[in-house]
Amino acid sequence: MTLPATELTSTLPTCDFTVFGGTGDLALRKLLPALYQREREGQLPADTRIIGVSRSSIDDAGYRDLVHDALDEHVPHDDLDAAVVARLVARVSHVALDIEEPDGWHLLHGLLKDRLGDQDAVRVFYLAVSPTLFGPICERLDQIGVVDGRARVVMEKPVGHDLASAREVNEAVGRVFDEPQIFRIDHYLGKESVQNLLVTRFANTFLEPLWNSHWVDHVQITVSETLGVGDRGGYYDTAGALRDMVQNHLLQLLCLVAMEPPTYVGRETVRDEKLKVLQALKPMTPTDVDRDTVRGRYVAGLVDGKPVPSYVDDVGHPGSGTETYVALRTEVQNWRWAGVPFYLRTGKRMDRRLSEIVVVFKEPPHAMFPHSEGGTPANRLHIQVQPDEGMRLHMTAKEPGPGGIRLRPVSLDLSYATAFSQRSPDAYERLLMDVIRGNPTLFMRRDEVEAAWTWVEPILRRWASAPDRPKRYPAGTSGPTAAATLLERDGRTWQESDQ
Amino acid sequence: MTLPATELTSTLPTCDFTVFGGTGDLALRKLLPALYQREREGQLPADTRIIGVSRSSIDDAGYRDLVHDALDEHVPHDDLDAAVVARLVARVSHVALDIEEPDGWHLLHGLLKDRLGDQDAVRVFYLAVSPTLFGPICERLDQIGVVDGRARVVMEKPVGHDLASAREVNEAVGRVFDEPQIFRIDHYLGKESVQNLLVTRFANTFLEPLWNSHWVDHVQITVSETLGVGDRGGYYDTAGALRDMVQNHLLQLLCLVAMEPPTYVGRETVRDEKLKVLQALKPMTPTDVDRDTVRGRYVAGLVDGKPVPSYVDDVGHPGSGTETYVALRTEVQNWRWAGVPFYLRTGKRMDRRLSEIVVVFKEPPHAMFPHSEGGTPANRLHIQVQPDEGMRLHMTAKEPGPGGIRLRPVSLDLSYATAFSQRSPDAYERLLMDVIRGNPTLFMRRDEVEAAWTWVEPILRRWASAPDRPKRYPAGTSGPTAAATLLERDGRTWQESDQ
Repeated sequence: MTLPATELTSTLPTCDFTVFGGTGDLALRKLLPALYQREREGQLPADTRIIGVSRSSIDDAGYRDLVHDALDEHVPHDDLDAAVVARLVARVSHVALDIEEPDGWHLLHGLLKDRLGDQDAVRVFYLAVSPTLFGPICERLDQIGVVDGRARVVMEKPVGHDLASAREVNEAVGRVFDEPQIFRIDHYLGKESVQNLLVTRFANTFLEPLWNSHWVDHVQITVSETLGVGDRGGYYDTAGALRDMVQNHLLQLLCLVAMEPPTYVGRETVRDEKLKVLQALKPMTPTDVDRDTVRGRYVAGLVDGKPVPSYVDDVGHPGSGTETYVALRTEVQNWRWAGVPFYLRTGKRMDRRLSEIVVVFKEPPHAMFPHSEGGTPANRLHIQVQPDEGMRLHMTAKEPGPGGIRLRPVSLDLSYATAFSQRSPDAYERLLMDVIRGNPTLFMRRDEVEAAWTWVEPILRRWASAPDRPKRYPAGTSGPTAAATLLERDGRTWQESDQ
Repeated sequence: MTLPATELTSTLPTCDFTVFGGTGDLALRKLLPALYQREREGQLPADTRIIGVSRSSIDDAGYRDLVHDALDEHVPHDDLDAAVVARLVARVSHVALDIEEPDGWHLLHGLLKDRLGDQDAVRVFYLAVSPTLFGPICERLDQIGVVDGRARVVMEKPVGHDLASAREVNEAVGRVFDEPQIFRIDHYLGKESVQNLLVTRFANTFLEPLWNSHWVDHVQITVSETLGVGDRGGYYDTAGALRDMVQNHLLQLLCLVAMEPPTYVGRETVRDEKLKVLQALKPMTPTDVDRDTVRGRYVAGLVDGKPVPSYVDDVGHPGSGTETYVALRTEVQNWRWAGVPFYLRTGKRMDRRLSEIVVVFKEPPHAMFPHSEGGTPANRLHIQVQPDEGMRLHMTAKEPGPGGIRLRPVSLDLSYATAFSQRSPDAYERLLMDVIRGNPTLFMRRDEVEAAWTWVEPILRRWASAPDRPKRYPAGTSGPTAAATLLERDGRTWQESDQ
């Protein structure tokens, strides 16, 4: 299979990178530090321009100060280099823009127009704003004539809060941009260990023969945070963990674990395979929802030894029915995975921050060592997504020593930090470069997002109508006990990663 | 499968441990230090006795001094404990014995007779002497009445120098001892990593599905030494590398890699399966020998920067036709391994000391990453037997960094020294305890030894009649170039383990 050289590794074209929400948290905390790191690597072409758009009335100098401060705060100290900071800041300008007022749009057009005829120049519009603005912004961009075949739009989650609203957003944006120009970001897909999952599965011989219902007992995907809702309480209370985490991050991880090998790793091939997984997820009936899902909500507790308030106090909404924790069991109904449960869980204010995929293999079919009649422990592949990206294969070895064969668990380890001396780039670095290059492999396609909502909706509907409410769990714990019961019922337990 | 508790892990019985060749190199360098370590672990029952037998006329005190000095020299300094040394030395006595003279035998009988009636006491006769004496010693032991059902005999290699002589020795010893009482030692089988190979294969799910001709491209077994023939030149010149190393150590390692899973790991079950492998080895025709074997002999060179003489000078035999290096290709002709080559090589005066089994898996069937059209590297499992026991799974990972998926080789590592805090016991410790317990699992059964000779003999015969002689290789190198050609012909190369 020969691929065009431009498919994944071409160098960057000239780019005008426009961020709507340029003074917002995401831009200052993630996007500009990511661009800084790429600047530092010498990857940004000399004529790259970065335009922050916001309603703020600051001028270019004021915005540059803001960016300067943000880099100081959010780039690791050892990575800061005054010359690089100066180079990046010099690329930055600001446009004050109220979406309803033509003045700001004129200004933006004025900044972009000199490159509109340049067939080699790319325009990126990054929508780090409320999803309600996605459609209107795209419409105006079209009106001022800056959307052509070399323009790209990036959408942050959430894309909709259910299937209908996701379709609405997708249609509004789709009226202006063609699907290959639309980049729906899920930053989990930009993480090294998540991309490495593809390589681990498909550039090695030793996993794929085991990667099916013959040898895999079940799969666990955990995304636990110690943080609460922070200052996103207003949004979060209308969303909840299922919409905020499961519909996107956890289902995307599940897709990468479960997908069939594509013909090659390219623009659409991986997304085609992920879509097939989403379409193969066992649909949830109301009875399934009651049996196979657990929702929880944190009450006051201790996180890292410090008292933290309850969710209700965090969001100031005593009557809230919103979940901050979800655990569920699903299956991928296809030939490869028939009968293999996939257990997903995610929560806020948990006892630890950990994103991890665990593939639990079946026990050896026959216990042939003396004193191993109780069964030998199952092999497990732990793929840690954060905080420390790496991989561990838990296996059984002989304990050294004469006199009998005693079995003992050991692990074969691959730590990214240890194996690779270079810095592991942040997910956003990778993803922003892919946007500029026009490579959508690691972004969610419209049909994926809508398929995920299609699967999630019956859970939302049942929860909305069910008489019970989220189970309480104290902040700083591992979630409601019902989540443990969900697995115990199947004779299994959650794998708590060794620290 | 329930096993009798005594099968592998029972505590030690009372034992009289008699070593013929008690003042020899093996006894002083390996056997007594091994017994010391077991003493130190508190494993030797209080009434254990150790009797050194030799033609030397030293008395008990003289022998104890010899043992004392040997422990000082051969036990790692940190493990030496004066109280433990004293305890072990107190168990030791010496019998001066000429095999033809009845006096010594009377003395030996005198020492052993008090426990002859004790059904709980075990007698071990360790034959650390020339194989020509195996038969005569056993005959005398029988004559003085110390061989009963609780007696065991241990034979060091070589058991014979061809099939006929091996049968002769086996028959002579077998006239006195029943097969379950006969322990043919191959100390490679006592090494932790060799035993761990059984556990790795059969107490884990992840290897066995791959362990066949579908997924394994080929297997390499290397035993390379930096030492020359030392003071064994007289024996070695009549043996050569094929008899000295391949017929026993390398074929035993091959058996453990290739064998089918037994019903359980027990006295005869593992040996039954190893025998099946030996019987499945593709017999060598003279044409096969010419094509699939390479013999070499070192000439003067540099080892560790120091000049060393040639083999001919080492043994003082200018006309010698003896090989100090063997490389060969064979196949295991059964359903599991059909068509999978097993490459074996061993040599003296090589560039490094290394015993290693490498299982090279097939390349992924399809290269699906851009720029991986040249194929992705094959996965390899390295099982290092010495000097540092451990296991490494070489795989392919994504190199961290944005912009394309670049593949990079990494390894998942299990070092015994790192994974297990306890000292890894010497092979002899394990094996001596197994002898005392009467557990022959890790010893070679008569039929195994004879099957190995049956396979080796056509090579010996062809070499003896072929006009060409061993290829020259300079000491301190990786052997004759013909060994590389042997694999290159098949489009493969020897895996040189990363240091």
